[in-house]
Amino acid sequence: NLQKALWVRNVTRCKNVHLGADRLREDFPIDFVRAVTCQVCDHLLAEPLQSPCKHLFCRTCIQQYSRAVGQHCPACGLPCSPFDLVSPTKAFLGILNSVPLCCPKEGCGDPVPLGSFGTHCSSHQEEKEEEDQARKRQWQAYSNGYMPINKGG
Amino acid sequence: NLQKALWVRNVTRCKNVHLGADRLREDFPIDFVRAVTCQVCDHLLAEPLQSPCKHLFCRTCIQQYSRAVGQHCPACGLPCSPFDLVSPTKAFLGILNSVPLCCPKEGCGDPVPLGSFGTHCSSHQEEKEEEDQARKRQWQAYSNGYMPINKGG
Ligand SMILES: [Zn+2]
Ligand SMILES: [Zn+2]
Ligand SMILES: [Zn+2]
Ligand SMILES: [Zn+2]
Ligand SMILES: [Zn+2]
Ligand SMILES: [Zn+2]
Ligand SMILES: [Zn+2]
Ligand SMILES: [Zn+2]
Repeated sequence: NLQKALWVRNVTRCKNVHLGADRLREDFPIDFVRAVTCQVCDHLLAEPLQSPCKHLFCRTCIQQYSRAVGQHCPACGLPCSPFDLVSPTKAFLGILNSVPLCCPKEGCGDPVPLGSFGTHCSSHQEEKEEEDQARKRQWQAYSNGYMPINKGG
Repeated sequence: NLQKALWVRNVTRCKNVHLGADRLREDFPIDFVRAVTCQVCDHLLAEPLQSPCKHLFCRTCIQQYSRAVGQHCPACGLPCSPFDLVSPTKAFLGILNSVPLCCPKEGCGDPVPLGSFGTHCSSHQEEKEEEDQARKRQWQAYSNGYMPINKGG
């Protein structure tokens, strides 16, 4: 089972693209964590698709699993072709997008809804760039002051 | 397993108190349904408590299960005494209370968040009583008109 799990990870190769379930805030119940993670890669669901047996997977995960392993559900083994997959209902997507995550930026304690996690993290990136530029300007101001007047020669 | 399930239902006897999972709107994913239902009675979680193994149960269900069956988790069998039980986090309770349910009143198509289901259903009850009273007044108005004038004798 562990071997299969490792093999599946090698098929999907999404470790650097998807968010780990450890981004979930606090002590979420175990069945809830399962409900918002992909049944192929165990990451938080990214662009989820739902099978007729009502299991959920990332779009890329189930597509790659179908091609590489076969047209059945990775969770329960029931038949499942790419044509059988549908989007989860709006009601579920609304809940999924509202799940609070921990921001990876140290010092930022805000709970960040999954649906706006990308925007939130970009805003930190912009802040950082602005800070870097401000620091650069400050450094330039001082370095001008200390510049030697005699230009050599 | 079915026999155990029947026996558990006989212990908890909550069928007429808790809401069935069939109150959930639309085609919710199977793992999400599991995440919002009691691991003892399979109804929608009522006053949920969380075990150290992070499983969830209705308050009354796990209390009765502990007394009648033993101090272990009904879902996974790990040790669990009533003193080990805690409230789920606010983050999870917020999600649980926002889960949309179907109103049992025919014609009312509104999705009703689990957290306000009681209030919503009471409002229908009040409407019904007002309608009944209005109907009674109408009936009285007409029955007065048709009342025989001669009072016998
Ligand atoms: Zn993944
Ligand atoms: Zn995945
Ligand atoms: Zn399945
Ligand atoms: Zn942040
Ligand atoms: Zn129940
Ligand atoms: Zn219960
Ligand atoms: Zn357990
Ligand atoms: Zn209603």
